[in-house]
Amino acid sequence: MTNYTIVGQPVRRVDGFEKVSGRIHYCVDMAEPGMLCARTLRSPHPHARLAALDTRQAEALPGVEAVVTAADIRGTNRHGIERPDQPVLVPVGERVKMIGDPVAAVAARTEEIAEEALGLIRAEYEPLPGVFTPQDALAPGAPHLHDDAPGNLISQYTSGRGDVAQGFAEADAVVEGTFVLPRQEQAYLEVEGGLATIDSAGVITVYAGSQRPVFIRKSIHLALGFPEHKVRSISANTGGGFGGKADVSMHALAALLAHKTRKPVKLVWTREESFLMHPKRHPFWIRAKLGAKRDGTFTALEAEMISDGGAYASHSLIVVFAACSYLPGPYDIPHLQISGRSAYTNNPISGACRGYGQPQAVTALESLIDWLARDLEIDPAEIRLKNALELGDAPGCPRVVLDSPPTLPLTIREALAAAGELPPPSGPGKKTGRGLGCAMPIFDISTHDTADMKGVGASVEVFPDGTALVRSGVCEIGSGLSTVLAQVAAEELGLRLGQVSVLCGNTESTPDAGPIVASRQAYCSGNAVRLAVADVRARILEVASDILHADEGTLELAGGMVRVRGNGHAIPLGEVTKVCHRTGVNLLGSAWFSGSHAPAGHTFMTTVADVEVDEETGRVRVLKMVNAHDVGQALNPLNVKGQLIGAAAWGVGYALYEEMRASDGKLLTPTLTEYITPMSLDGPEEWQAVIVEDPYPTGPYGAKGVGEHGTNTTPVAILNAIFHATGVRVTEMPATPERLLRALKQQRQRV
Amino acid sequence: MTNYTIVGQPVRRVDGFEKVSGRIHYCVDMAEPGMLCARTLRSPHPHARLAALDTRQAEALPGVEAVVTAADIRGTNRHGIERPDQPVLVPVGERVKMIGDPVAAVAARTEEIAEEALGLIRAEYEPLPGVFTPQDALAPGAPHLHDDAPGNLISQYTSGRGDVAQGFAEADAVVEGTFVLPRQEQAYLEVEGGLATIDSAGVITVYAGSQRPVFIRKSIHLALGFPEHKVRSISANTGGGFGGKADVSMHALAALLAHKTRKPVKLVWTREESFLMHPKRHPFWIRAKLGAKRDGTFTALEAEMISDGGAYASHSLIVVFAACSYLPGPYDIPHLQISGRSAYTNNPISGACRGYGQPQAVTALESLIDWLARDLEIDPAEIRLKNALELGDAPGCPRVVLDSPPTLPLTIREALAAAGELPPPSGPGKKTGRGLGCAMPIFDISTHDTADMKGVGASVEVFPDGTALVRSGVCEIGSGLSTVLAQVAAEELGLRLGQVSVLCGNTESTPDAGPIVASRQAYCSGNAVRLAVADVRARILEVASDILHADEGTLELAGGMVRVRGNGHAIPLGEVTKVCHRTGVNLLGSAWFSGSHAPAGHTFMTTVADVEVDEETGRVRVLKMVNAHDVGQALNPLNVKGQLIGAAAWGVGYALYEEMRASDGKLLTPTLTEYITPMSLDGPEEWQAVIVEDPYPTGPYGAKGVGEHGTNTTPVAILNAIFHATGVRVTEMPATPERLLRALKQQRQRV
Repeated sequence: MTNYTIVGQPVRRVDGFEKVSGRIHYCVDMAEPGMLCARTLRSPHPHARLAALDTRQAEALPGVEAVVTAADIRGTNRHGIERPDQPVLVPVGERVKMIGDPVAAVAARTEEIAEEALGLIRAEYEPLPGVFTPQDALAPGAPHLHDDAPGNLISQYTSGRGDVAQGFAEADAVVEGTFVLPRQEQAYLEVEGGLATIDSAGVITVYAGSQRPVFIRKSIHLALGFPEHKVRSISANTGGGFGGKADVSMHALAALLAHKTRKPVKLVWTREESFLMHPKRHPFWIRAKLGAKRDGTFTALEAEMISDGGAYASHSLIVVFAACSYLPGPYDIPHLQISGRSAYTNNPISGACRGYGQPQAVTALESLIDWLARDLEIDPAEIRLKNALELGDAPGCPRVVLDSPPTLPLTIREALAAAGELPPPSGPGKKTGRGLGCAMPIFDISTHDTADMKGVGASVEVFPDGTALVRSGVCEIGSGLSTVLAQVAAEELGLRLGQVSVLCGNTESTPDAGPIVASRQAYCSGNAVRLAVADVRARILEVASDILHADEGTLELAGGMVRVRGNGHAIPLGEVTKVCHRTGVNLLGSAWFSGSHAPAGHTFMTTVADVEVDEETGRVRVLKMVNAHDVGQALNPLNVKGQLIGAAAWGVGYALYEEMRASDGKLLTPTLTEYITPMSLDGPEEWQAVIVEDPYPTGPYGAKGVGEHGTNTTPVAILNAIFHATGVRVTEMPATPERLLRALKQQRQRV
Repeated sequence: MTNYTIVGQPVRRVDGFEKVSGRIHYCVDMAEPGMLCARTLRSPHPHARLAALDTRQAEALPGVEAVVTAADIRGTNRHGIERPDQPVLVPVGERVKMIGDPVAAVAARTEEIAEEALGLIRAEYEPLPGVFTPQDALAPGAPHLHDDAPGNLISQYTSGRGDVAQGFAEADAVVEGTFVLPRQEQAYLEVEGGLATIDSAGVITVYAGSQRPVFIRKSIHLALGFPEHKVRSISANTGGGFGGKADVSMHALAALLAHKTRKPVKLVWTREESFLMHPKRHPFWIRAKLGAKRDGTFTALEAEMISDGGAYASHSLIVVFAACSYLPGPYDIPHLQISGRSAYTNNPISGACRGYGQPQAVTALESLIDWLARDLEIDPAEIRLKNALELGDAPGCPRVVLDSPPTLPLTIREALAAAGELPPPSGPGKKTGRGLGCAMPIFDISTHDTADMKGVGASVEVFPDGTALVRSGVCEIGSGLSTVLAQVAAEELGLRLGQVSVLCGNTESTPDAGPIVASRQAYCSGNAVRLAVADVRARILEVASDILHADEGTLELAGGMVRVRGNGHAIPLGEVTKVCHRTGVNLLGSAWFSGSHAPAGHTFMTTVADVEVDEETGRVRVLKMVNAHDVGQALNPLNVKGQLIGAAAWGVGYALYEEMRASDGKLLTPTLTEYITPMSLDGPEEWQAVIVEDPYPTGPYGAKGVGEHGTNTTPVAILNAIFHATGVRVTEMPATPERLLRALKQQRQRV
């Protein structure tokens, strides 16, 4: 399909061996001589006024080197992705707004001393009434949580076109449902943690996982009042992010303690702190209604949704925007009326989580489509094909511009072809069913103004020996992006993958590349690295053209050589770069990719899930999961398959197992013991990732984003398979055996 | 004199407080958890065959983690600035060529264990006859030291013009002398040392002082066979270099041990190792002859010189070239014949040392001029003014192009004016005298091909808060360059100095800027940083022009604001950069300065030294030292004065105290106890640095180089002052009391 050498090849990850061999260092492995250990004192109340704080006893404990409170902070003491509404430390006299809000932190010679010191801090609270659902939060008389916000509404979004009343009037069938979608935990293997150091010039460096080092730098600058040129954020190895590391976690507190003690300070969260503190997938309540004509043609979609933002805004504005705007999906629906709101509560924070509002929206729409298909006695694939967007249609999502024939039909056909026949039940009392889930997922290119995501830098340095180093501000959070960037540089320079290193996510050494979120970085940084190579490549070819007495246009880089096409003349790249080095030719290529025609790219995908439902136990076994995704051009098919299969595992969790429950602001599933994620035995018995390639004109080699998309379609494919197997319309997730048994019982009672 | 705000101001060094307060970390302070300590086994023989090496007992010593020999090395096992002739470790069967040549190294849990292990390594040598003067080395039948060199000659250089025989025939007076110039030690406060680490991807990082991290990277790559993309060299704080840290020192061995142990390895040399192993100022023997007409007009200069390169070439090629080519100095001499040679011996290595061949040449020429002036009864200043180069003259140095009226006369007049009257002797038996030393020192811009010094990169990142970070590959070795680069960036961005940080000398984070040698970096990196700011400044002004509704040409950056000239409208820079950050405007400015019209810049300077000689003790007291230097434009007058006064102290040492003596290849002055450098009480009682400013068209703000130049003229000014006080022609340096007493006695006997 391609003429590339390394791009498009299923190469192993450049950091794979380090990772599987356990050689790589994560935050818990970090150490510095003379390092202190830190712990954080957190509010036990979901809503209370911090009345008093006495740290004297803790300060007097031998081995304690510093106790910090809000009084130590010279900056705004606020951080937040979309609004600076979250305190680094809650000041005395102000309010804690969630269980876990930090009020003090201790740095001590050992973690045990730091923990003991926490017990010696006297914090007095005046408890206040809390609010624990967004519906309550927006009701009149609800406690007003943020003084500087007009009310508890974080954001609302409304969009529409046509006239939905007319649309439903034209419909021959209308289905409606209210979907209750749970809070989902990212449950990355590596908890939040890291190390802050201060050098003799007062430069603070925070070594810790994140999804955007530049945001960490900026947040520390604003919250603590250190100028940005004196703050560095280095995010080398991060054991999973999935949106949960897009915000500030331990970074600011570690920096504050390092600044106060002038020593290195390590601060690693416990799993309980991680679960409690980082933003998770928003719980959503979606009421949605879809109408269609007898032939299946959709006439109208109406939806209203509300999401629980938790105590601080984090990504709540854009997540509700994403859920609303992507709700109409890959279909041509003439009449639309969609609105959504998010609200502050005294619950744990909601924020970015793989899929970012889309899984909730897709679950609602794709469930309705299957119900409608059943009512109209149309095949689920047929009804989707019938309504699929075509070139010239105006998508319901205002951010998407259809610039080439949509590939939804292709992904539906390929997914079904790969899925083969639905297997019969394995025994009595069991039923099998097949479900489809389709979507038009997006990948953000320049995205919203609020997120400072426009523009992506990269540099590629070619060394005199002809090897190369890619510098990219993107963090390697496990997505395999460093491998993809190495492939791009190797491809463009004609090198082997092992001749290229990648230095990632480090404000000291790498150009800003924006966050690794929104499935954007293979596209954005892939393009930036390609441009950076082009910059240095042009200079190398100019020198090579002199050496080889050949026109630059006839030269190519391949197999470690600079070759003249046609006459067979060639010289090793390392010989040319040695000449460059000696004669003062700049071997550092730089680029700034500032996006393309659209703020967001889009693509199409289809999931087919086959399940078997045990009607006696309510247990659902996922037999097969096929994800067919139009990736434009797979830069690394192995990695693409990994993303699709990983997303399928998330889908299994979201559909069947995962629910981060809270009551009065307190997590009822505070550790991995209570919070159930699918294990390897819970996954589909057969996974298939089908790569569909329809090159994207502005993508690097035609690539589109892929990272998160499988989380959009896989959960609802499972729900639809349950529906097809049993007729049960699951509207509250996860579809646990208890819930399913109850639904099956109700169904039997109805019959 | 200037319209600049920060450039030209005598600002304190940006790293001054850290340094004087002892907060800064040098190599001995470095530590990493689990770090090993290393020691090196060195040859006790100046020339011998390494017959056998048995490391088994050392390896068995508890606490020893690795012993390395040449057998562990997969690369060329060679390094060297100009020729790769120096082994990282001498292999069994091959020859050690100097005392101190390394044959093995140990990494152990403590330095004491490593030292003990050295004693357990059995190294057997077959001693060979050595050669200890360059004259002997070039004599027929001398032991041939380097198998892959045709003989012991490292290099020779010859230049001439006109006909010296005719020139001397036209002369009314001719003087001749043979000057014996000693080996001089840089004696920096910080010895060589540092730390090598290896990460899980196999990337080796060496944290250690150097004068060019890129050269260290390249040397490790070649010598050890690691690809360049897997080697990083970080040279943060270096306590003095003066040329002595331009070569590889402990870097390769530390890298080898880290690679073998996969642990951090610290290797710090003792003062004895430092004295023994790093290249020092070349001993020179210069026979020179100068003729002039009765009116003082020079007619001919003839010289022949030979220098002792020691066991390995290091910088010997270019140092002898520099000494020869700069010998004719700032004078118009029609007939020239100059030749020079350097040779291998079994002595410690000679290499780069502040002045780089010029102090030796200047000492010879400027001595002859004063002798000639005395013979012709012409004032020493007058004879220099009479012969000073004028615009249109062809300098004797082929690398210098006179592109503006030479400023030698100006520096002579300003130096003499500043010096005032020569004081009378302080008592009986004492005599006072005044000496002049003049030179046309150079600063290398793109310099010789062999040194890979063409092209200088820099980047300047402006942060959303309006502060900035300069990234430069130059090492801060104590010259104050980081302050100068911060000044340039602050000047161009209209910031305060404290709003700019500088990250230096680090192949991980900074663009290559070539070595900090040859007084080149204020010029080269000053220009590169200025260009890097211009790159980002243009984008910032474009955005500001939109915000302020003003033409970009009317905007200026000053006082932290972007101002419209004329109408008083202004906006803080930080507001504009926040808009840039949000809208995706690249805030990283990059530049590559690839030199200017000439390979070397030149300037002029004059030293006036007043001394008092005690004829009874032979002791010389330097009463006053005035250095008048045309610096083009002083970027930081305080720093320029520091350089001139520092160089004056070197001159005192070179003229009166310092001599690194060796006998049969063994240092007779192996530590700071035996090797005498001037202390603060030995310096001139009055120092004056006179800044002459004749802007250099291509220099940043007109700046010229200045770093080393005072070492050229200050020694001979002292010798000439002794001559004027006593009539003694010092031809062997240093002019110790013993030598001076002997000369005074011979003089009395002649009278």
